[in-house]
Amino acid sequence: MEKKKLKELFNSLTIDAKISQLIQLNGDIFVESGVMNTGPVKDLGFKKEPNFYEIGSIYNVNDHQKLYQIQKDVLKNSTYKIPLLFMSDIIYGFRTVFPIPLAQAGSYDFDLIKQAAEISAKESYRNGIHVVFSPMLDLVRDPRWGRVMESPGEDVYTSKQFAKSVVKGYQGEDDTYLKEDHVAACIKHFAAYGAPESGREYNQVELSNQKLFNEYLQPYQAAVDAKCELVMTAFNLLNGVPATGNQWLNETVLRERFGFRGVLVSDYAAIAELAPHGYAKDAKDAAKKGLLAGVDLDMMTSTYANALPELVKEAEFAQRLDNAVWRILVLKNKLGLFENPFRGLKQENTGEVLTTESKKIATTLVEKSCVLLKNKALLPLDPDTKQKIAVIGPYAESHFTLGFWASVSGRSSDVYTLKSGLLEQFDKEQLYFSRGFNLYENYEPFGPLKDMFEQLNGPIEDEGYLLEQSLEQAKKSDVILLTLGEQFLESGEGASKSNLHLPEKQIRLIKMLSRLNKPIIALLYTGRPLVLTEVEKYFDSLLVVWFPGVMGGKGITNLLTGKANPSARLSMSFPRSEGQIPVYYAHTSTGRPLANSTHTERFVSKYIDESNDPLFSFGSGLSYTSAEGHWLSIEESEEKLHCHFEVQNLNDSEGWLTAQIYLLNYAAEIVQPVKRLVATQHFLLKAKEQQELAADISKEDLGFFDNNGEFHLNKGEYVFQLDILGQKENHSIIITKGVSSWKN
Amino acid sequence: MEKKKLKELFNSLTIDAKISQLIQLNGDIFVESGVMNTGPVKDLGFKKEPNFYEIGSIYNVNDHQKLYQIQKDVLKNSTYKIPLLFMSDIIYGFRTVFPIPLAQAGSYDFDLIKQAAEISAKESYRNGIHVVFSPMLDLVRDPRWGRVMESPGEDVYTSKQFAKSVVKGYQGEDDTYLKEDHVAACIKHFAAYGAPESGREYNQVELSNQKLFNEYLQPYQAAVDAKCELVMTAFNLLNGVPATGNQWLNETVLRERFGFRGVLVSDYAAIAELAPHGYAKDAKDAAKKGLLAGVDLDMMTSTYANALPELVKEAEFAQRLDNAVWRILVLKNKLGLFENPFRGLKQENTGEVLTTESKKIATTLVEKSCVLLKNKALLPLDPDTKQKIAVIGPYAESHFTLGFWASVSGRSSDVYTLKSGLLEQFDKEQLYFSRGFNLYENYEPFGPLKDMFEQLNGPIEDEGYLLEQSLEQAKKSDVILLTLGEQFLESGEGASKSNLHLPEKQIRLIKMLSRLNKPIIALLYTGRPLVLTEVEKYFDSLLVVWFPGVMGGKGITNLLTGKANPSARLSMSFPRSEGQIPVYYAHTSTGRPLANSTHTERFVSKYIDESNDPLFSFGSGLSYTSAEGHWLSIEESEEKLHCHFEVQNLNDSEGWLTAQIYLLNYAAEIVQPVKRLVATQHFLLKAKEQQELAADISKEDLGFFDNNGEFHLNKGEYVFQLDILGQKENHSIIITKGVSSWKN
Repeated sequence: MEKKKLKELFNSLTIDAKISQLIQLNGDIFVESGVMNTGPVKDLGFKKEPNFYEIGSIYNVNDHQKLYQIQKDVLKNSTYKIPLLFMSDIIYGFRTVFPIPLAQAGSYDFDLIKQAAEISAKESYRNGIHVVFSPMLDLVRDPRWGRVMESPGEDVYTSKQFAKSVVKGYQGEDDTYLKEDHVAACIKHFAAYGAPESGREYNQVELSNQKLFNEYLQPYQAAVDAKCELVMTAFNLLNGVPATGNQWLNETVLRERFGFRGVLVSDYAAIAELAPHGYAKDAKDAAKKGLLAGVDLDMMTSTYANALPELVKEAEFAQRLDNAVWRILVLKNKLGLFENPFRGLKQENTGEVLTTESKKIATTLVEKSCVLLKNKALLPLDPDTKQKIAVIGPYAESHFTLGFWASVSGRSSDVYTLKSGLLEQFDKEQLYFSRGFNLYENYEPFGPLKDMFEQLNGPIEDEGYLLEQSLEQAKKSDVILLTLGEQFLESGEGASKSNLHLPEKQIRLIKMLSRLNKPIIALLYTGRPLVLTEVEKYFDSLLVVWFPGVMGGKGITNLLTGKANPSARLSMSFPRSEGQIPVYYAHTSTGRPLANSTHTERFVSKYIDESNDPLFSFGSGLSYTSAEGHWLSIEESEEKLHCHFEVQNLNDSEGWLTAQIYLLNYAAEIVQPVKRLVATQHFLLKAKEQQELAADISKEDLGFFDNNGEFHLNKGEYVFQLDILGQKENHSIIITKGVSSWKN
Repeated sequence: MEKKKLKELFNSLTIDAKISQLIQLNGDIFVESGVMNTGPVKDLGFKKEPNFYEIGSIYNVNDHQKLYQIQKDVLKNSTYKIPLLFMSDIIYGFRTVFPIPLAQAGSYDFDLIKQAAEISAKESYRNGIHVVFSPMLDLVRDPRWGRVMESPGEDVYTSKQFAKSVVKGYQGEDDTYLKEDHVAACIKHFAAYGAPESGREYNQVELSNQKLFNEYLQPYQAAVDAKCELVMTAFNLLNGVPATGNQWLNETVLRERFGFRGVLVSDYAAIAELAPHGYAKDAKDAAKKGLLAGVDLDMMTSTYANALPELVKEAEFAQRLDNAVWRILVLKNKLGLFENPFRGLKQENTGEVLTTESKKIATTLVEKSCVLLKNKALLPLDPDTKQKIAVIGPYAESHFTLGFWASVSGRSSDVYTLKSGLLEQFDKEQLYFSRGFNLYENYEPFGPLKDMFEQLNGPIEDEGYLLEQSLEQAKKSDVILLTLGEQFLESGEGASKSNLHLPEKQIRLIKMLSRLNKPIIALLYTGRPLVLTEVEKYFDSLLVVWFPGVMGGKGITNLLTGKANPSARLSMSFPRSEGQIPVYYAHTSTGRPLANSTHTERFVSKYIDESNDPLFSFGSGLSYTSAEGHWLSIEESEEKLHCHFEVQNLNDSEGWLTAQIYLLNYAAEIVQPVKRLVATQHFLLKAKEQQELAADISKEDLGFFDNNGEFHLNKGEYVFQLDILGQKENHSIIITKGVSSWKN
């Protein structure tokens, strides 16, 4: 629709019609085609029930037939015939569920991550979705927080690359932009939701401006630069003010500074929650503060609907209402909904999911996301040796390896299990399967889903019996393949944990098995870094497989047998203990660093009972091959540094590798991290192969912001560290040429 | 000296003489009378060795004879005859060592705390000290940090009252101000040193302006308002900038906003450490940044001495040097040093320590500082019953119960042990003593002090033997009195811990003893809140005795026998686990609070595996009596709220009690803590007695600062909670009258 016509439509709207555009409800209100179910919505306390056919958007209906009918009904029953916007919690796959974002980020294959997002977009599009609530870009350094699984991890650079790749994968570029097989990205959660105090869900966040601008806000900004169409507010307090009611954050920073022009949606009920938060006096005040903070869409509350009719009698609020409605209409127009309200719902497209191609990409992403943290020459396993393998633990047969968010649109029944993968590459006679322990204590908490859980996981058995059975199987075997970790409800939203150890029953199993003196390969299924300090010593090999998505079993088996070579590097550090949290690589130095201290041992920055280092640091990750890298040169141009280095495979195994280039700290007006990642290069290296590689570093990534938000980039010496499989080499360069905001 | 004469002296000084005034060194340079020992000082790297008789100050010589000789030599050998300033790490007592500040604060007897400070001042004065490096006023909410022992704890109001009491106790008021038997207070550490990330010593701190102004800076400001003469900078980064190099903090906030006009001293080597911190390029840059941040005294480095001669050729630095020197001279003049350089060193005063009166006050402060957290009607013990008591654990005989900082001037040999106390009130035949476990693993780490430690603690014994011996004693007894906790080097500076559980050997002992089914009274010696979750259930009574100082054994025994009635309330919460840290009472609400949630159980602010509450919260503390309190009225005047309430002792035991009045949270532009303490009243209640009490609340304590540092105080309803021994009653009042910075 041309802008002029859109403006005419906009001008024709009554106040009530405008306000309705700001309402977003769960699609449950339209349960069956043409049947309006306002049951759950009644609880929302609408003073005057809105005409639900006039509201702006719904979310989490993922059934194309229902969506088709809903849109048809809307166009039939609404006055203004404004198509309804369909959003959904598609975080890391629609039906082709990929590994969780925390896993994906560690692949450092940003092209592959983009391809995965393209598949998510395509499947979402073909099932009628217009907007997906992802990528989540909350920088995370506290593994107690359950939502680390959704995040690209602890590193700023990695998160920025992830942000760009996923947004472009969803939305397309240039000629594909928001067209067929693409959807709009709603990044979340603005801002700094990933730093809750005590790691407790929804808790307050305290961060200085410099820390926000240098680290926490960077990934969101990268997504805005990549033109994400929507942003979702966060649940947390930031520095005493809820993000959802934070004018400075949403207007001064997001809109004015970052130049975001799209739609700002509240997280679930977050506007209404300004009242229990202690920021708004009541619901009306909450509406006022939400609107003043520039929040366009009110998700799943009656707050705007009830308060705005009165509020917009004041000119400022009327203007803000207009701005919000206009942004929503512009988004609908960009998506082509006025021309084609049934966008993506054409019968020939609908429902095309889990294609051979998408499963192939999902498998590759599993292979590239699993992190090999330990390997005493035990892996890869060679099926031809016919050695006997005891596959112990409930994950081998489990279908619940998609992770928390996949339950919205994904299906456990789609999961290609580890057992299937193993049976495909090993002789059946080689494999002894046993559950080891119950993945769930009981199925009652699943309510109506409990039968399905029981069916897919098997009945709860006596733990002693399971242990006994596993020991029997292990005794008959040459190698133990032990699956351990979290069950999928233990991470994700609302799953903060104070204890990150494995459950006692798993530890007991590990210890019992270790007494058999057979080699143990541990596969860790998890949504977060866990504390493995007491058990890691029992493992000969340790592969972190995260929640690997629908093709987990296939990708993991390929890694176990060497059909694929592990290449991922940890996106988040694994602490030695809960008492060490937060522990992350890019920390600042103290005035009394532990290394090279001239002080007596007591008066340095340390614990008296624990190391300062995590058990496995960000960037850790082994390969079946070994390689080395050496600097060739760094050259300076106006805007960039051009890095050249050579890499060599020292071994006969071909493999993907990731070179990481870190900037080491330098003296500055804002104290810098001891090191920070500024470039990566992901490449395939054949057996014994040598290659010359290049990577560019933007000069802007070398500078920093101060607490006033001013950017600084000092001339002088900068030292870079090339890291190939943990082998490190430094190279320095004197930077002499300026960029725009130059200072010395 | 008159200001005019002081100005003349100042004007007569050469640049070198001025710079020398900024140097502060350890008094070790003057080892013996008249003998200059520059050995250790040589390591400091002075480019040109200063004339040590000309430097401004020394610290930690606590021997009056040495100080007398040093001052004599200075006056003899220096050109300008400016007396040397003597400072010392007197934190909670000179020789009369009181309970650690974390313990004292919980007494809520601020008059008694002031009296203790007066005794510290008197003993310091009479031993020649001019300035004491205390009170430490760093708000603390992370018990991993070792220095919580020095702090008045987690609460803002408590810390402010403590600050005022101690500063006034040291410095005197009006006609006693800085005169005989008083010393100048150097508060520390400016600012926010108490919030190190991960609880790791010297680590970075991130806090918003509102959090600084509303909470962390308040205790320092209270001390400035109480006219503390000196402030010490902190070691930590605050929001990316080291506190010691932080111009905004030290000049904009401390001097301009708070109106501090005294001397700002760096912490130990903190100016030089701006370089390893990554804030200064080199030592010269560190000197520049220290001076620009308004730091007057350079403690224990050559940074100022080496760099200033060149630096002060620039007018700005010359002016800053002049300002610093002038402030130091003004302080010396205030102390009367120009008239009487031997201040406090007169022979008749010298060395008067540990008087009957001071020991009495120390004993009372022990009685009022120990917190009774649990009591199943077991305490008090009645010596007349002649029941047999097994006194198990190494603390009963230990002299090392003074806590970390007391080692500077205190003496372990002064300690009145628990054993002495018990033997004084019980028949010898009633008591069976056994060590239970070795307090230290070995004495080697103590180097030259190891013989003394061995002598005072006894030789290291086999743990199995000690356990066996304790079980034997316990079997013969009716009651077990078990002493547990930390040894004194486990807390204090440089003693961050990641694990806050009791050591394994103590837990084993507890479990073994519990199997005897005899009542167990646990006495916890500690410098910080510990994690007691797994062991607390074995205790019938639990008394936290902290590090109780020289009179610990007497005060604790009085509490055990009911000669004194416990009245202290916890100044800092005890977490349930390390994974719950930080956990404190005055946290902000989330938008999805756990209490009264309308959300499904998953989506509220909580852990899935742990309570949100600590094991023992701030404010916990039992008495041998029970009491109740009821509101009478709250009346409003221009500047204050006047609270009236009645209290009644429901029991036959007389006892001291503390009424705490909390302000409950209200909706505001900056989200408020769920509750915060705004007034306390400490009172003695005789058996069955009823009293009417009053307490005032300053209206300014009801408002808050925003992130621009602006103060807000909204009209409207405020709800107050009266808390007597944990029994709570609310009362609300509509505030209608304004104060200066009024807003609605």
